[in-house]
Amino acid sequence: MRISEIVERFGGELEGDGSLEVRGIKGVEFAGPDDATFALDEKLLTSAEASPACCVIVSRGVRCSPAKTLIRCDSPNRYAADLLEFLHPTPALEPGVHASALVDESAEVAETASVGPHATVGRNCSIASGAQLMSCVSLGDDCAIGEDTVIHPNVTVYSHTRIGARVIIHAGAVIGADGFGYFPDAGGLRKWPHVGNVVIEDDVEIGANTCIDRAKFGTTLIERGAKIDNLVQVAHNCRVGRGAILAGQTGLSGSVVLEEGVTCAGQVGIVDHVTIGRGATLTAQTGAIADIAPGAVEFGMPSKPRRRALQEAAMLGFLAENRKTLRKLIRSADRG
Amino acid sequence: MRISEIVERFGGELEGDGSLEVRGIKGVEFAGPDDATFALDEKLLTSAEASPACCVIVSRGVRCSPAKTLIRCDSPNRYAADLLEFLHPTPALEPGVHASALVDESAEVAETASVGPHATVGRNCSIASGAQLMSCVSLGDDCAIGEDTVIHPNVTVYSHTRIGARVIIHAGAVIGADGFGYFPDAGGLRKWPHVGNVVIEDDVEIGANTCIDRAKFGTTLIERGAKIDNLVQVAHNCRVGRGAILAGQTGLSGSVVLEEGVTCAGQVGIVDHVTIGRGATLTAQTGAIADIAPGAVEFGMPSKPRRRALQEAAMLGFLAENRKTLRKLIRSADRG
Amino acid sequence: MRISEIVERFGGELEGDGSLEVRGIKGVEFAGPDDATFALDEKLLTSAEASPACCVIVSRGVRCSPAKTLIRCDSPNRYAADLLEFLHPTPALEPGVHASALVDESAEVAETASVGPHATVGRNCSIASGAQLMSCVSLGDDCAIGEDTVIHPNVTVYSHTRIGARVIIHAGAVIGADGFGYFPDAGGLRKWPHVGNVVIEDDVEIGANTCIDRAKFGTTLIERGAKIDNLVQVAHNCRVGRGAILAGQTGLSGSVVLEEGVTCAGQVGIVDHVTIGRGATLTAQTGAIADIAPGAVEFGMPSKPRRRALQEAAMLGFLAENRKTLRKLIRSADRG
Repeated sequence: MRISEIVERFGGELEGDGSLEVRGIKGVEFAGPDDATFALDEKLLTSAEASPACCVIVSRGVRCSPAKTLIRCDSPNRYAADLLEFLHPTPALEPGVHASALVDESAEVAETASVGPHATVGRNCSIASGAQLMSCVSLGDDCAIGEDTVIHPNVTVYSHTRIGARVIIHAGAVIGADGFGYFPDAGGLRKWPHVGNVVIEDDVEIGANTCIDRAKFGTTLIERGAKIDNLVQVAHNCRVGRGAILAGQTGLSGSVVLEEGVTCAGQVGIVDHVTIGRGATLTAQTGAIADIAPGAVEFGMPSKPRRRALQEAAMLGFLAENRKTLRKLIRSADRG
Repeated sequence: MRISEIVERFGGELEGDGSLEVRGIKGVEFAGPDDATFALDEKLLTSAEASPACCVIVSRGVRCSPAKTLIRCDSPNRYAADLLEFLHPTPALEPGVHASALVDESAEVAETASVGPHATVGRNCSIASGAQLMSCVSLGDDCAIGEDTVIHPNVTVYSHTRIGARVIIHAGAVIGADGFGYFPDAGGLRKWPHVGNVVIEDDVEIGANTCIDRAKFGTTLIERGAKIDNLVQVAHNCRVGRGAILAGQTGLSGSVVLEEGVTCAGQVGIVDHVTIGRGATLTAQTGAIADIAPGAVEFGMPSKPRRRALQEAAMLGFLAENRKTLRKLIRSADRG
Repeated sequence: MRISEIVERFGGELEGDGSLEVRGIKGVEFAGPDDATFALDEKLLTSAEASPACCVIVSRGVRCSPAKTLIRCDSPNRYAADLLEFLHPTPALEPGVHASALVDESAEVAETASVGPHATVGRNCSIASGAQLMSCVSLGDDCAIGEDTVIHPNVTVYSHTRIGARVIIHAGAVIGADGFGYFPDAGGLRKWPHVGNVVIEDDVEIGANTCIDRAKFGTTLIERGAKIDNLVQVAHNCRVGRGAILAGQTGLSGSVVLEEGVTCAGQVGIVDHVTIGRGATLTAQTGAIADIAPGAVEFGMPSKPRRRALQEAAMLGFLAENRKTLRKLIRSADRG
């Protein structure tokens, strides 16, 4: 594809030789002489200029000497993403229900939806137009799947789950299993029946082998645009707010609330009934055992403001280095 | 259902108007005017009384002014659970082997058991009466599944696994994969053949995407009534004692022993060959690197008694606050 | 099997009565009077001698009084593993494509390979001789599976994944799902198209329900002989070096590099773009937030050399014990 053709199709302003052929678009470290790359700021642009790439997609505002062909646009990220999606289209399943799939006769499957091989769809389910259930997906009774939602292979969705539009659920995820709740009874533990459900709003993405448990009563809710990585645990009755980000192996105990825009880095844990305020960030492996204020940046277990946690870590290092003096000080104070 | 009908069926003593209709039973925060709710103690009863619920299930001993209709019983939890199971019956699979399932001819499947769509059952397996294997479950050779055990979709059970009665295994769990063991050989790592198995006793529940590895020799044992949450790792040759509770994302290394009634909160880790004494509790994210005494409550990594760990955390905070004074003290002690 | 027959078949030198019958080979704690056991050093040999086992496999160099029949060999581990594999042969799937499997007509499946029940194989895949795909495995388009590789049930392999020879992938693992990357766009988060892939070299083993994400650009690479346990997360663009060991529930963020022979114990976390030097060890639950030198042994979050981390822990314990004196010291320094 010529650079000039790219600009014709995707917009932006061309600076330099538009007749060059571009074979792909790659990050700066990956780009070869036939590739376009992209740069968000002047620092990245320096790397982009130094790379073998023949073309750089840059923001309109960035100053640069046009040693390579440039495409100037409002958002190089969006431009690159658009171009990547165009060059690497995702092959969709063929519409329709595969002959080996089992769809209950009470279920409604839109004509343009597809149900893949060896999938099962329970009673009273509805699958909206453009939705895709890949191989070996299991859908319980009374589930609803929104438009253009994609459910990858070997995902299990328990009954009464409602999933919005343009949701992506990666392979092996389990949505709507019973929450983890018991009470002592007759010398053992009796299971609490979990009669709530899971609701996943539009534009959510859920990672591979992630588990989202159904509510005890009411709903475990994943709000619009939240992004959840692989192997994450979301327990019964949690609410994950709009646009929240949960990185890999994070775990939310029961009834945790993440307000809008919360970020949990990898392996974060939050104990039950804790609320994390709007826009707060929990850095990697943090353990939250009490509510966190909006906008806070927390670290450690138990979590504290990151700055304070780093001060404490530095203090501990200093004390360990001076341990002989400190021991002497304490001993002499004890004596006298 | 009228409250009087509930009492007729489930027992307990009615106080107040039994003619009211109840549509469901819900937790205090979820109950509407048509719902019954339940309360274990006087504090919860206050919330229950303040809720819109038309009926409250309470212990016989609790004092209360009958502003709402009450059902008095020995255990409100049990009463509520019984009622919930009655109102929300789990639809069972139809008995029999689904046409798309593959059951080896040497396997014995009880008449009232069901093997769901696209499930596979290996040689010499036995599946007892009332047991259910849902869609895409894979059962290796020589496995035994007890009465009324339910295995949710996409679960894999490796060969030689023995599972008791009334066990619940949630979707995506993997039972009996090889333990993680290698030895250096010929410039690389050689895999230890794992020729042991997994035994799961009666009344165990295993969460979604949880993994329980087979033993190297002998048995990885999950004892009666243990409850294991989602995404938990139980390595080769562990023994999880009766009634133990393992919350989400907990990990047990090889040959760990949890004695009866141990509780591991979320994201707990235990290194290999450690024994956790009867009734001990490891709080969230704790890392146990040595044996823990019966009844202990531990916290931190490396774990220590929770009270001590909190003292240390407080001490560190105090030192960080007084870091200037402390540095001065140490400097002057060094000088003189 | 007589001990003399074992020696005939597997080599080694017999000391003592070779006419005894051996029924199995077991670890020292598991061996009965009909079993052989094995011992690597003199200490283990003492246990082996004390066990009921009728035969002990030992290194040539170990001194011992032949109270039991001995087999002397170069490597008791290797000898035992060879013998175990002989006594417990893994039943292979029958070669060929199962009638219920769906293999795209453009895929090439070697004659001796097997594709199990309800498996699906996408366009342009190649499956080499001796490879086994078990039930409900899903293989995307353009995947290559090497010789004698075994993929257990319910594994999902996304498109463009390349898997070498003699690889073992345990049940429920997900290979090649999209990496976790977004950018802010139009009031929400836009997904980065992930157009890279995953390459798994020869002799790798991957645990149950482990997730290895595809690269954003380029390749997420698992090098020859690396061993990965259950429930591990390997994010986009990581490189896991030759012979690296990742224990259960470890998580690598994006673009992490583990050089050759790195060991991560259980529940280790590594933040993005960090490099762990050749042969380094991260002990359980360690969190690495910066590069680690080759050969280092690290502990804690943030990680530090294990020895230093233990000093700091000891120091903190000492301070907590002497907290009264310390508070007094600081108060009087503040005053004076």
